[in-house]
Amino acid sequence: MSESTRIAEVRVTPILISDPPLLNVQGVHQPYTPRTIIEVVTDNGVSGIGETYGDTDYLKIAQAFGPKLVGQPLTARNDLFARVSAAAAEVDIAQIDNTVVAEGLRGARTEVKLVHSVVSGFEVALLDALGHETGLPVHALLGGKVRDRVEYSGYLFYRWAEHPVAGEPQDDWGAALDPAGVVEQARRFADRYGFKSFKLKGGAFAPEQEVAAIHALHEAFPDAPLRLDPNGAWSVQTSLEVAAALEGVAEYLEDPTAGTGQMAQVAAKTSLPLATNMCVTAIDEVPAAFTSDAVQVVLSDHHYWGGLRATQDLAAVCRTYGKQLSMHSNTHLGISLAAMTHVAATIPELYYACDTHRPWQTEDVITVPHTFTDGAVDVTDTPGLGVELDRESLAALHRRWLDSDVRDRDDAAAMRRVHPDWTAPAFPVW
Amino acid sequence: MSESTRIAEVRVTPILISDPPLLNVQGVHQPYTPRTIIEVVTDNGVSGIGETYGDTDYLKIAQAFGPKLVGQPLTARNDLFARVSAAAAEVDIAQIDNTVVAEGLRGARTEVKLVHSVVSGFEVALLDALGHETGLPVHALLGGKVRDRVEYSGYLFYRWAEHPVAGEPQDDWGAALDPAGVVEQARRFADRYGFKSFKLKGGAFAPEQEVAAIHALHEAFPDAPLRLDPNGAWSVQTSLEVAAALEGVAEYLEDPTAGTGQMAQVAAKTSLPLATNMCVTAIDEVPAAFTSDAVQVVLSDHHYWGGLRATQDLAAVCRTYGKQLSMHSNTHLGISLAAMTHVAATIPELYYACDTHRPWQTEDVITVPHTFTDGAVDVTDTPGLGVELDRESLAALHRRWLDSDVRDRDDAAAMRRVHPDWTAPAFPVW
Repeated sequence: MSESTRIAEVRVTPILISDPPLLNVQGVHQPYTPRTIIEVVTDNGVSGIGETYGDTDYLKIAQAFGPKLVGQPLTARNDLFARVSAAAAEVDIAQIDNTVVAEGLRGARTEVKLVHSVVSGFEVALLDALGHETGLPVHALLGGKVRDRVEYSGYLFYRWAEHPVAGEPQDDWGAALDPAGVVEQARRFADRYGFKSFKLKGGAFAPEQEVAAIHALHEAFPDAPLRLDPNGAWSVQTSLEVAAALEGVAEYLEDPTAGTGQMAQVAAKTSLPLATNMCVTAIDEVPAAFTSDAVQVVLSDHHYWGGLRATQDLAAVCRTYGKQLSMHSNTHLGISLAAMTHVAATIPELYYACDTHRPWQTEDVITVPHTFTDGAVDVTDTPGLGVELDRESLAALHRRWLDSDVRDRDDAAAMRRVHPDWTAPAFPVW
Repeated sequence: MSESTRIAEVRVTPILISDPPLLNVQGVHQPYTPRTIIEVVTDNGVSGIGETYGDTDYLKIAQAFGPKLVGQPLTARNDLFARVSAAAAEVDIAQIDNTVVAEGLRGARTEVKLVHSVVSGFEVALLDALGHETGLPVHALLGGKVRDRVEYSGYLFYRWAEHPVAGEPQDDWGAALDPAGVVEQARRFADRYGFKSFKLKGGAFAPEQEVAAIHALHEAFPDAPLRLDPNGAWSVQTSLEVAAALEGVAEYLEDPTAGTGQMAQVAAKTSLPLATNMCVTAIDEVPAAFTSDAVQVVLSDHHYWGGLRATQDLAAVCRTYGKQLSMHSNTHLGISLAAMTHVAATIPELYYACDTHRPWQTEDVITVPHTFTDGAVDVTDTPGLGVELDRESLAALHRRWLDSDVRDRDDAAAMRRVHPDWTAPAFPVW
């Protein structure tokens, strides 16, 4: 290939994927959740794929930017943020209020964050295509792997046995609504995939119940590093009580309380490290959080930070400021798991197991979904991401999107189908 | 190519290059200064070249590491620091005192900094070879250029007309020892290369003389951004007096005073931005300098920071903390100028012209030295660095190294040939 290789075609495809009824402080996962699948094809006929959020605003920006990528160099990634921003400026984006620190699952919602998420999907697609053009795996395009396997953490959820409406996606995991249920879920994760560490999504029940679940996990898996993440639902006082109860048991607490200020108050009074994917999710949020030592572990997520290169940038910032890095996950498919694995393989200082929502998502758009062995995914040396798009699956999941009116993730709305008065709670909940 | 492409051969060649009698606070440039040229050859027979410092300790580490690179993947760069560190641990390194903030031209001297400088030479050679393997220019391997030309600043020096010993390298630039001489030098730089901004290496004369030179430059080139760099020679009070005298004339002051603490004292009382390549030259020096707002502009240098990717890392750190980035230069040849140009082309936020010691170095080890037009170097899209090693020149300059006893840069020793009592001065000098 050469520098003159250009993008000849771009496809942006919204899909709906099935999701189990997983609980969190905002509500419960809907039966279907949107994702966007991005394909780029070079003028040599080589293609690459990426994946990102599929909610309305993300999709609008991706659809606006896609055509503008045609004719651009395959290798041009450093100006993606500027180019996607320009496309986003032409789009009518809803629900942006830069002045309010939202207390959703992703912290404050800003246009810059939306743009970064869209960039991430295109950046991964460009890297995948560049890998196929050059014969190199994505990790090699990012400076090379420093490990051959990437360890993931089993992501435990309180959950219902099934969605409330007949005909919606089902699985055989059963309910997990108390410590015993959580331990049973972890055991199945350990037996089936070999996960050696576990994260429990909290904020679904009162803190003492969730602390009891972590203690039960610790009893069942005494060597397993454990994490608890209530998505900012607790007060400072409650966070400190939980921290005291989990000292020596949890490896870190994730977003126990909302916002950098409260996180700093908690961090000042506990030796348990605090992790975040809510108050540090964009670079302008870094200095205040680091200066106040509000967080000790930053949960990277290439969908948040603007791609794989931006994840390496974040690692450099953390390295410089003596902060640890771990990895957050939202509902995702195999394209993103491949991307996460490649970038995780390139970061020397990644000492924690990465989060992944897999294997909760049983559907996929790649021909050979990843397997977890001993809780890890092998880093592939085959070109690009090392996965292949399953066009039949993609078409079927896009057909589902076309046939549905689900366009955005809304855990509160899903909860209202069972509890009609439910609203996302005011923080702190406890 | 594929991920299985390996390094089959490594050559580490020390050379001496001629250097004019350029003055600074430590003394004067020697007639010859050492550099190390690194060549890597893949098992496909494709080669790449890099360049770094050639002083004894750098060379020892490079020579220790070179053989260890054989058999390693061509694409493995993320673990270079760890691998070169391991090689350095086996080498007897002189002159390291991690506890003392040295007041030489490069700030504190630590083993980590030596390792980073050696890494930079190998990293560039690996990128050059990877570019030749893939057909891609180095900038494309770094995520793509965001500009087609990289602007450089004309690097003005007080200087003698010639070295004190007959038979040593000569040129026709003549002496520059007062404002008129500096302006004349700048005019020649502008006429010949089109430089649109200028940096004056200060610390050679009393501050009022150097301020007068900047004022004279401003009068002669009223639109040119101007910089003055005394390498930390001034007290806080003197720095503030200079800052007051150059407010509205200089674009920034570079290391007016030594150390982060004093820089912070100066920065607190002037609106003139302060730049540094002395108190922020490694990541462990970043937090204190940024927290105290001691510097507003960090002068990157891929030889300092561990290569081109590390320079992009530094850019990310600066972006995150709202600091500006510019680029430092030491004596270098065309391989490094190519590397500097490629990485500078990839960083969106590089708003300042880069420093370069070129064109003071008239010798080179590439077949077609770069040309400056309108003060800029074109970013090449040809594979790798876009330069070719001149083996005859390399052999000749290596022969000079073999025939000489110059092994380290020592500006004070060079000054003693004229002023036998000269020692590098205690700081602050003024």
